[in-house]
Amino acid sequence: MSRPRRRTSARRRETANSSIPQLPWGQFNYALEPVTNLDPEQVEMIHLASLDLLERVGVEFMGQRARNAFREKGAMVDDSTGVVRIDRDLLMECIASAPSSFTLTPRNPERVIKVGGRFGFATLVAGPPAVHDCERGRRTGNFDDYCTLIKLAQSFNIIHAIGNQPTAPIELSAESRHLNCYLANILYSDKVYHCTAIGSARAMDGIDMAAISRGISREEIRESPSVLTIISVNSPKRFDEEMSNGLMTMAEWGQPVVVTPFTLMGAMAPATVAAGLAQQNAEALAGICLTQIIRPGVPVVYGGFTSNVDMRTGSPAFGTPENAQATMAGAQLARRYNLPFRASNSSASNVVDAQASYESASSVWSAMLSHVNEIYHGAGWMEGGLMASFEKIILDVELLQSVSLALSRPEINADTMGIDAISETPSGGHFFGHPHTMARYEHAFYRPLLSDWKNWEAWEEAGSVDARGRATQIWKQAINEYEAPAIDEGRREALESFVDRRKQEIKRSLVS
Amino acid sequence: MSRPRRRTSARRRETANSSIPQLPWGQFNYALEPVTNLDPEQVEMIHLASLDLLERVGVEFMGQRARNAFREKGAMVDDSTGVVRIDRDLLMECIASAPSSFTLTPRNPERVIKVGGRFGFATLVAGPPAVHDCERGRRTGNFDDYCTLIKLAQSFNIIHAIGNQPTAPIELSAESRHLNCYLANILYSDKVYHCTAIGSARAMDGIDMAAISRGISREEIRESPSVLTIISVNSPKRFDEEMSNGLMTMAEWGQPVVVTPFTLMGAMAPATVAAGLAQQNAEALAGICLTQIIRPGVPVVYGGFTSNVDMRTGSPAFGTPENAQATMAGAQLARRYNLPFRASNSSASNVVDAQASYESASSVWSAMLSHVNEIYHGAGWMEGGLMASFEKIILDVELLQSVSLALSRPEINADTMGIDAISETPSGGHFFGHPHTMARYEHAFYRPLLSDWKNWEAWEEAGSVDARGRATQIWKQAINEYEAPAIDEGRREALESFVDRRKQEIKRSLVS
Repeated sequence: MSRPRRRTSARRRETANSSIPQLPWGQFNYALEPVTNLDPEQVEMIHLASLDLLERVGVEFMGQRARNAFREKGAMVDDSTGVVRIDRDLLMECIASAPSSFTLTPRNPERVIKVGGRFGFATLVAGPPAVHDCERGRRTGNFDDYCTLIKLAQSFNIIHAIGNQPTAPIELSAESRHLNCYLANILYSDKVYHCTAIGSARAMDGIDMAAISRGISREEIRESPSVLTIISVNSPKRFDEEMSNGLMTMAEWGQPVVVTPFTLMGAMAPATVAAGLAQQNAEALAGICLTQIIRPGVPVVYGGFTSNVDMRTGSPAFGTPENAQATMAGAQLARRYNLPFRASNSSASNVVDAQASYESASSVWSAMLSHVNEIYHGAGWMEGGLMASFEKIILDVELLQSVSLALSRPEINADTMGIDAISETPSGGHFFGHPHTMARYEHAFYRPLLSDWKNWEAWEEAGSVDARGRATQIWKQAINEYEAPAIDEGRREALESFVDRRKQEIKRSLVS
Repeated sequence: MSRPRRRTSARRRETANSSIPQLPWGQFNYALEPVTNLDPEQVEMIHLASLDLLERVGVEFMGQRARNAFREKGAMVDDSTGVVRIDRDLLMECIASAPSSFTLTPRNPERVIKVGGRFGFATLVAGPPAVHDCERGRRTGNFDDYCTLIKLAQSFNIIHAIGNQPTAPIELSAESRHLNCYLANILYSDKVYHCTAIGSARAMDGIDMAAISRGISREEIRESPSVLTIISVNSPKRFDEEMSNGLMTMAEWGQPVVVTPFTLMGAMAPATVAAGLAQQNAEALAGICLTQIIRPGVPVVYGGFTSNVDMRTGSPAFGTPENAQATMAGAQLARRYNLPFRASNSSASNVVDAQASYESASSVWSAMLSHVNEIYHGAGWMEGGLMASFEKIILDVELLQSVSLALSRPEINADTMGIDAISETPSGGHFFGHPHTMARYEHAFYRPLLSDWKNWEAWEEAGSVDARGRATQIWKQAINEYEAPAIDEGRREALESFVDRRKQEIKRSLVS
């Protein structure tokens, strides 16, 4: 059944500049009803427990600017402890002003992302200090690795956006590396990217550079969101000053943040899913409330990152059953507030093996089943977030593609049911050559990039390469075939000038 | 946080005779609503297309005994072609007499299995000619391997039943090896097992031995099902004589069969999920109808095995998106007829790697989401069914355990929500020592058997063993710690006598 002539044309159609088979660009568009694991009364119990916590106990905001904003809006603020307590009516009024969905537009308008409702998108891994590939092993990430990771994200349509720093480029100044990173995001990809929100300036640089890349002004980007930022809560119950400043700058300039409590059950939250959810909900609502105080109606995302530790060792664990439960329940809570929801594709494995695969599969299945809008760390996350793996990116591309198709609806009609074909084919016969089969030859079924369906003998003859080894071949091929997306020369120069100017300013501010 | 003293007691409670952590014995009890991917109108379209096929085109039954049974009941039978056409009223009348659920009782009544509704069970792999473990590699299966596989099934609570021959013991006579296999099933495990249904005699031997193992008569077992059998359809549209004879013997003696069309889309069925389902439905209903003609009300299971080939090579593929779609839709069709449903945990991978893991994860997630009652090949299936892998059993035990927990409901109440714990713990603090955490120390979270949550340094120091390597250690440990379940000495002798007598009879019949 080998038809190399046809394969070529199929490949051409699937991807413009690579011979690796993949799905065309497109977001997840969840076709099945969302899976829920909470009764409506249970959602209300968690909701009310969160309101009680915020009203009675409160959340600490270490930043004076955040506390002032809350105070001006009527929240109860204690500057000596930093604790902000929020009346439930005030809270719900603020939450209600956030939109249920919005769009993000990067420099290539064809890569626009819808956030909310039945639409989902996945990002490249974000944040690891280390990188790994099977040729060079584990090492501290540098800017060359950074750029390679961005190129890989650009190479695969199912990676819809760039997270914040797929690895931290260690050799670049910590004060200004975000500028190199934004520039690489824009030059090596044309997709939405996340800003760094450690303080206002880094967020503002990300917004400014997105505006330049689109050829629009600050005032224009304020009305047309381009970038987003993860705001991590220092759980339990604490927003540090840099984070809340970043949040406020993003909100002020009309860009969404993803308020994400780090509710690791057994460590930063109690050791039950119920408590993890109640605490997550309170912390997320506090941050979301602040975005709406700063700019009512600004887009915002409810972030969930509720997983658990290994109770025997304290090690964080991901892709666990409790992690999946919290994702599905968290999505229900976010829908309670008509807010988009974020979860993650996570794994604690140190190697691209069966464990990495089933932990990520658990993350991706639970996220897609519950209509998660942003699957952060969508591709490449390993070792509980400490390592970005080139091979893991390939595994995750396969997972994201195949699970999204598994959860689509089969097309049922007189033509697809092929009753004539079934009637005409003799008992015990086969359908290889039937016109019904031939008409569907090219695109009948999902064509994987990583799976190997050879029989044992053929597989052994081809070198007995397992999925990890094949993933190495695939990412190298993707990098070999990578082509940078075109960019307007004037905008490129403007971006480079911006980076130069800002680096000078940062250098001067450090010296003074 | 290491507390070895507590670990010991936790282990003792989790499993009687092994230090490998695992869940206690218990079936899947699906707590979430079933995921559906067909609209009710689409279910009806497939249903009506199947009725049309059975009425107008029919299915070939190569066995005269089956054709006679259909003819006597009023079906349209052509003995020259073997084709049986079934009027829709007759068909639906027969289907309606099958029970929606039933129980299977093995020799240990504590291992009884409920089949139907929200209950699910998983079986050991069945049928591969080859076995594989990472110490001895791939080889043709023999009786020693057979017994080791049964011991592994007995060692893990989440493997609820023994499929038909986890490997074919090649050195034993093909005519009588089923007797050795049944005896090993009964002596090395106390769980429900599947009979071989190649002809009536092998099925009857399985029924007789189950009756002996329970100390009951043929007449008693007829009213208390003990064993079951997969009846594979020679798709498209053909039941061979041996299979229909096995089916009829099982039905006559009150034991359920699992009628399973082999609708491999693109080969034995057209290249669409819609057609695969329509053909599967027609073929399954034909076989189920025959069980009810033989003995109205006899338990029976609707089997789904709809996957696809690689259209470029013709290779069968499993754990694909289309396979998952067909499982979820197939479960809906079975519910349409109030019948229990069977699917599989399948993978085409040749090695216990990331591919084996995500293909099996796709199988298990889709099966559990759609309330599949029997997950056949639940543990150990590799290489598209050609190889039983010892390491894959360990991977699948982890998958079956963790996915079933991921799809359970979190417990939400005032106690689990731990609002006091959240209130009392300082901002930015931790919950390690809080009484709410300590009270849940032992059983807060799922404890995996295969996952390794060590950080990179500790993992490297421990030898950088990946999941496949750890699986080898675990199955060896399970075998080392294996203890045969107690059996009444009189029944054991009666079983051995039965085997001796039947072997003599078979030998004589072969000579004559």
